Amino acid sequence: MTEKSAKGLVQVFTGNGKGKTSAGLGAVIRALGHGLRVYVVFFMKGDYPYGEFATLRQLGVDFHGFGFRSLTDPAKLKPAEIEQARMALAAAREAIVGDKYDMVILDELNVAVAFGLLDIGPVIDLVKSKPDRLELILTGRYADPTLIDMADLVTEMKSIKHPYNQGIRARKGVEY
Amino acid sequence: MTEKSAKGLVQVFTGNGKGKTSAGLGAVIRALGHGLRVYVVFFMKGDYPYGEFATLRQLGVDFHGFGFRSLTDPAKLKPAEIEQARMALAAAREAIVGDKYDMVILDELNVAVAFGLLDIGPVIDLVKSKPDRLELILTGRYADPTLIDMADLVTEMKSIKHPYNQGIRARKGVEY
Repeated sequence: MTEKSAKGLVQVFTGNGKGKTSAGLGAVIRALGHGLRVYVVFFMKGDYPYGEFATLRQLGVDFHGFGFRSLTDPAKLKPAEIEQARMALAAAREAIVGDKYDMVILDELNVAVAFGLLDIGPVIDLVKSKPDRLELILTGRYADPTLIDMADLVTEMKSIKHPYNQGIRARKGVEY
Repeated sequence: MTEKSAKGLVQVFTGNGKGKTSAGLGAVIRALGHGLRVYVVFFMKGDYPYGEFATLRQLGVDFHGFGFRSLTDPAKLKPAEIEQARMALAAAREAIVGDKYDMVILDELNVAVAFGLLDIGPVIDLVKSKPDRLELILTGRYADPTLIDMADLVTEMKSIKHPYNQGIRARKGVEY
């Protein structure tokens, strides 16, 4: 097994199934246990005190939540929505280029790109600028094909069975 | 959105891709943030101080690690290997039937069953005996079809691209 100074990878968790954000958060638990420094940017979660925020705070993990869980109208993006995504990307850039972290998680970045909140160009540039040893994890469905090409590890979370289809709605402490 | 007293589901994370255990651990982060009580049994991780153990300890999460990451010879199980799996299942049963937790995670249970360390019968009985409000999460590839049938939510983590295929080995703080 190699040491933590090994080359960091670009990981993508995408697909329509549950577990993408959770897998990113789980990576945080593991990394912290080995003393790695972790930063998380939430691209679509600035508007609610999500359960994970309290625990990350308790763990002393640096993180920032930007944006909104749902867009008012995906066909007509609001300036505030775009501004939040840009701020999230700026925070990600500072963390990545600043080289203060061993692992950076860009949660729901893929969705922000797919919804047109971010251009893919600056995102590609950011991934390219990653310090060699940094582990970079991108989550969210609709991952851009170029990001998948650039990634070292890609997992598709595929929904085999989902309770929303059975009329059960999102539950506090489990989905958010 | 329903409250945390809502019916708990049976969730399964399976498939050949990365992120199954991580998704379970990520669920812990979220649940703790809402004050839920969580218990984790690791069925194939008793033999090493995994990164996640330190963080779970820091978070005050109850957990136990049993078993071995690799079997000496899957075709010829050792009594010690079977005994560890039985102890893990007993710990799981105590936690589930004791009804002290809001969320229980049985990490790599699917693998323990697939490798023949556990009979499927007692596992099915255990899932059936779940208190109504308990969220029960089963992880590991090769999930038994009966468990998939019983589950409310099933996600297949599908490997689209994996660095082991490119000659990169497991890394501390990331994979373990």
